Amino acid sequence: MIGRYQLTKINIFLMVSILMHFHAYIEADQTKTLTVNPKRLEQRIEKLAEFGKTPEGGVNRVAFSENDIQSREYIHSIMKDAGLKTHIDEAGNIMGRMEGIDPSLPPIAFGSHTDTVPHGGKFDGAVGVLTAIECVQVLAENSVKTRHPLEVIVFTDEEGGLIGSKAIIGTLTSEALEVISHSGKTVREGIVSLGGNPDDLNSAIRKKGEIKAFIEIHIEQGNTLASKNIDIGVVEGIVGINWWDVTIEGFANHAGTTPMDRRQDALLAAAHLIIAVNKVATGVPGCQVGTVGRIKAEPGAPNVIPGKVVMSLELRDLSADKIDSLFQEIVQRADVIAEKTGTKIAFSPIEATAVPSPTDPSIKKIITEAARELGLSYLSMPSGAGHDAQSMAKIAPTGMIFVPSMGGVSHSPKEFTPVKDIANGANVLLNTILRIDSTF
Amino acid sequence: MIGRYQLTKINIFLMVSILMHFHAYIEADQTKTLTVNPKRLEQRIEKLAEFGKTPEGGVNRVAFSENDIQSREYIHSIMKDAGLKTHIDEAGNIMGRMEGIDPSLPPIAFGSHTDTVPHGGKFDGAVGVLTAIECVQVLAENSVKTRHPLEVIVFTDEEGGLIGSKAIIGTLTSEALEVISHSGKTVREGIVSLGGNPDDLNSAIRKKGEIKAFIEIHIEQGNTLASKNIDIGVVEGIVGINWWDVTIEGFANHAGTTPMDRRQDALLAAAHLIIAVNKVATGVPGCQVGTVGRIKAEPGAPNVIPGKVVMSLELRDLSADKIDSLFQEIVQRADVIAEKTGTKIAFSPIEATAVPSPTDPSIKKIITEAARELGLSYLSMPSGAGHDAQSMAKIAPTGMIFVPSMGGVSHSPKEFTPVKDIANGANVLLNTILRIDSTF
Repeated sequence: MIGRYQLTKINIFLMVSILMHFHAYIEADQTKTLTVNPKRLEQRIEKLAEFGKTPEGGVNRVAFSENDIQSREYIHSIMKDAGLKTHIDEAGNIMGRMEGIDPSLPPIAFGSHTDTVPHGGKFDGAVGVLTAIECVQVLAENSVKTRHPLEVIVFTDEEGGLIGSKAIIGTLTSEALEVISHSGKTVREGIVSLGGNPDDLNSAIRKKGEIKAFIEIHIEQGNTLASKNIDIGVVEGIVGINWWDVTIEGFANHAGTTPMDRRQDALLAAAHLIIAVNKVATGVPGCQVGTVGRIKAEPGAPNVIPGKVVMSLELRDLSADKIDSLFQEIVQRADVIAEKTGTKIAFSPIEATAVPSPTDPSIKKIITEAARELGLSYLSMPSGAGHDAQSMAKIAPTGMIFVPSMGGVSHSPKEFTPVKDIANGANVLLNTILRIDSTF
Repeated sequence: MIGRYQLTKINIFLMVSILMHFHAYIEADQTKTLTVNPKRLEQRIEKLAEFGKTPEGGVNRVAFSENDIQSREYIHSIMKDAGLKTHIDEAGNIMGRMEGIDPSLPPIAFGSHTDTVPHGGKFDGAVGVLTAIECVQVLAENSVKTRHPLEVIVFTDEEGGLIGSKAIIGTLTSEALEVISHSGKTVREGIVSLGGNPDDLNSAIRKKGEIKAFIEIHIEQGNTLASKNIDIGVVEGIVGINWWDVTIEGFANHAGTTPMDRRQDALLAAAHLIIAVNKVATGVPGCQVGTVGRIKAEPGAPNVIPGKVVMSLELRDLSADKIDSLFQEIVQRADVIAEKTGTKIAFSPIEATAVPSPTDPSIKKIITEAARELGLSYLSMPSGAGHDAQSMAKIAPTGMIFVPSMGGVSHSPKEFTPVKDIANGANVLLNTILRIDSTF
């Protein structure tokens, strides 16, 4: 037994010496032909989708739910498998670090999130996390050492309003901590359940300059790439998003005894307003969108005229000015509707989820070159969806890589991206990381 | 002690003899000047409103709730106070009986309900029950004995779909028992909680001919009487009510990345349909009404285009044919909306709450004569609301007396009827009972 033990020790010593020597030589310019492992990526996407799997083939893994918590153990295990040293920061973000050759350099960071909307799909967020881990694993397997440290970030509760990335840039408010998330827990309770410490969020903050660059891969969630048969979207900016609660006050009354001409029906007013939002959003050229996604009518009985409706209004565009002008037109139309229906309509802004957020031109150029070199087709495009990248853009040069979403479907059990497209994105990410590492 | 006891026994014997003799003489034609006690009526309305009182001055006493159960104990106590012998039937209805002179005659029945809609008012239902008890109490106080037995009925769960009166006429279905009521209990569980026995509902059935007549007082719940300053509504019939669940299937998708022209927004389609219902209901002359009171959009997040909406549709009219033609027009418009919005719209009838139900012409005549004799103004009118009277009309000659609702407000904390108007109605009821007893 002692003899075997000594032999093993000698073997390890020899292997480590050889590897260190090897690492010192393999750097970015020798590694252009590295590619990710599509098979492993696919297996991991399917495995991750088991956590919160729904009968419709989707995933219900809202942040802080039992499904979310269990899935993070799996993510931890594959991050370790890829050679990353992991820890949970105070906001519950999973941080995985691979040291670089030069300890004085800031890390190149990349990642996304693993939480989903209620009844979501298996690609949104997951693709960004699993491709990030895959890139590190390929580097490790090929014994490639970068100059900069590498950091994979798995953000907390993206779908609830970029909670984890806001904490990292220091903009997560104490009010946001008290919001009740889809899990039923407050965000504060949720962060605790992930192993974070909401009382010490300052320790999670990363200052400007502390991160060399941040890159996020995400499914497009629109149908532009898929319908045009383009491999890669190079994101030029993330649209601004504004949310309002719209409250319509009418008069609750008996549906059988109140003649049609004496009603102050809040739901009828809401119907006119929903159509007005659609008309305003489609009435001018551009990529703006306007949505009413949530509605509640009170008292909510079939035989009572609704006296009150509360509904959401969301507007998105790459220009904050345009969002404002669309909103003003909606308010004007609401005034007319209120007058005609005998109701009162009030708009109450909910914390603006995001101001428009352009990506970094240099990073965009590097992503473009990486795609071109890999022989992939690419398109410069806005992101209609919000992403953790828009937070990170506040503290680091940031870029985003889109891969196609079949039919543009997302936030749905039916969202789908072929593994070939995911692997393309991962190869662009890998190439981008190495280009930033060597030249940026 | 023995001497006093004997004296008491003799006194009671004498009093009973005198009263019985007295009763035999005081009959309908001597009692025309009897009137109810407005002060007591008012006190009881306020007392009953304590059960489920809301900060807005309304009442939240949905059937089978703790508030409902406790209020029934109070009702029991005042029924006994009025000299009624009470019992709970198998459907949970409270039945109070005052024997008449001729035991071979069927009872004259009257009453209403004490449950409310969620966040309702203190007059709907309560007025009918408390005036019924008041009439019996005035007769008892004045030692007036009717030929027919009198029965006060406090119906179970009127607001949930005439549950108690449907049980009495034998039309309560086993499916209806499994419906979850606003209390959170199923109707079956609710009936048990009131002391009924849902496994033996057949024993609650009253056959045609078993009840001489049924009369219900109710607040008008519309603004006709109050706006025209008329004391009494003589109800000519109760409108038919049809309910549907309308399901709109669109496609749930990301609100940021799905361009406006590629959406299949179920809530946008619902908005068009709500407006169509309003247009159809207001597009022809008549007193028909059409209402969408309940709506649910899924998944219900501000950043997801609703993929599914389920909403209620209610149509009411005195003519079943008209309800049918209005519905057909709504379906036609729905087809156009579905086509334009890329959705599917399906209508699923919910158990028809009621077919149009005319009142009995003889009873209507008696109510009219009673009002005229009391010097009250009156108007023949339909009931836009459903009532237990429409069930009872299936097994007994039935009439309804309306009293004004200020501003036509009902099913609301703001519903209000002055006690003077309630006392007018109660006097018409008392006079009507005595007329039916002596002449009908």
